[in-house]
Amino acid sequence: MLSLCTLVFLSINTYAADKKNKPLTMTDVLAQSSASDWRTPSPNNIVYWELPNGRVVMELAPHYAPKHAENIRQLVREGYFDQLAILRSHENYVVQWGDPNVGETHAKVMKKGNKTLAPEFFQAIQRTDVFNPLPDGDVYAKQVGWSQGFPVARDVKRKQTWLTHCYGMVGAGRDMTADSGSGAELYVVIGHAPRHLDRNITLVGRILQGMELLTTIPRGTGALGFFEKPEQRVPIISAKIAADVADDQQTKLEILRTDTKTFTELIETRRNRKDDWYLEPAGKVELCNVPIVVRAKTP
Amino acid sequence: MLSLCTLVFLSINTYAADKKNKPLTMTDVLAQSSASDWRTPSPNNIVYWELPNGRVVMELAPHYAPKHAENIRQLVREGYFDQLAILRSHENYVVQWGDPNVGETHAKVMKKGNKTLAPEFFQAIQRTDVFNPLPDGDVYAKQVGWSQGFPVARDVKRKQTWLTHCYGMVGAGRDMTADSGSGAELYVVIGHAPRHLDRNITLVGRILQGMELLTTIPRGTGALGFFEKPEQRVPIISAKIAADVADDQQTKLEILRTDTKTFTELIETRRNRKDDWYLEPAGKVELCNVPIVVRAKTP
Repeated sequence: MLSLCTLVFLSINTYAADKKNKPLTMTDVLAQSSASDWRTPSPNNIVYWELPNGRVVMELAPHYAPKHAENIRQLVREGYFDQLAILRSHENYVVQWGDPNVGETHAKVMKKGNKTLAPEFFQAIQRTDVFNPLPDGDVYAKQVGWSQGFPVARDVKRKQTWLTHCYGMVGAGRDMTADSGSGAELYVVIGHAPRHLDRNITLVGRILQGMELLTTIPRGTGALGFFEKPEQRVPIISAKIAADVADDQQTKLEILRTDTKTFTELIETRRNRKDDWYLEPAGKVELCNVPIVVRAKTP
Repeated sequence: MLSLCTLVFLSINTYAADKKNKPLTMTDVLAQSSASDWRTPSPNNIVYWELPNGRVVMELAPHYAPKHAENIRQLVREGYFDQLAILRSHENYVVQWGDPNVGETHAKVMKKGNKTLAPEFFQAIQRTDVFNPLPDGDVYAKQVGWSQGFPVARDVKRKQTWLTHCYGMVGAGRDMTADSGSGAELYVVIGHAPRHLDRNITLVGRILQGMELLTTIPRGTGALGFFEKPEQRVPIISAKIAADVADDQQTKLEILRTDTKTFTELIETRRNRKDDWYLEPAGKVELCNVPIVVRAKTP
């Protein structure tokens, strides 16, 4: 562990001398941030997935997928996901969960939730949309940046904007027709951003905490990474909307706002790393390489 | 598992009717490939990492990192890596292995291997280099494509070319100085391509098989994803160069050549997915989203 030790050692020794002239690192930017740089997500947009190894916290993106967000809230609240399971773990791609028996006679019955929904692959750009562009370019879209705390792309000509398939983003699985998804089967991106999925499927939110509980699930050996044996599935003990959970049982998090000077400064620390270790700063940064930082909220 | 079932169902039913007019999928391109589209890597460039759960197969890239490749071969052959361990599992970043006691009095002793090496962060572009460009652009480099079966970037003005930090690429950890790495401590990319590392550290090759044995290792809870307790480390039972392993113990693989018409056709299937499922083909593809396909070699 020489790398680590040396890194820490040098940081301590050079800090005092260089403090004034040293360019900011991400740690500096976060340390200097003010309370108003952070937002507390609405507990109505937070889903807790209780797995055998712990809790996964997901934030819904109702601005981009209002119907799916509403349906997922309904499905969670009616207990649809409880005792369902993670069905698929696909190397460098996705982990997916839902009802293993869907389409069969013993499938879990939905009470008020919808089995299918109109696609929300993109939204019309609104004049009132807050959009913070990333000026570094993108292979897949003409414009990319952040809106409502999520990574997004835009096509001004077509007046469309959409969430992008970055690591940790969650989408609603669908079949062949555009309206065949509903949020009853969800997947999370666990590999290099599969941006070719953008505008082909509805993204519904992202994982804020607990990604490591999903990404380290042994890969399925069936086609597309599905588990071949039922016992390989990881059970979902329960799903809950944070707003329905007792205050002392909630996971209190806050998220760095993406419409602030602090976030712009953070992007710059990712674009040109000025830590002593880096010899050749990249000069640019890819959309999915900019972290939207999440931290525990201190009471 | 409706998605999967429907997909298979439709594929079978539409195949006969549409066979003639249907654009090629990746499966079609691979099925139509000829023996000359594939290369068998030199067994002198293949390292087997024997882990408790199985074998990880890595290919060295001596064209881009000749000194590191030679040193890694030496370290493997003198048994340096045997009984060392995986020390770090960092979510959406890297898994890293080496000697946990390096720098300490009870560190493993190198026999003929070098502890440090001159950096091989990039190479001078040679006239004789085979380079297959990807014309779809890139955020980090002016030119990207493939050479010698690896993803690479180029700066013609600076006459430099370098391997890129795509998922599955393996690099030689280093400390603060450029020449402080040697290949004795290695890392593999397990998340969204950290391309900002390009030209800051020496990439030495990539994992051909067994990535899932590395990516699903529980994440370390120490700083930078290092394991806090020795018992959390994953032991490396042994490392071997394939050329030194009995023929019937070798993992026989072949790799799709990147300098062929077949590979160009494969890129097109990734750029514009024509599977029935896709409604909005991306039109472009990112370097790290093009798979360099590996398959078992039939005797």
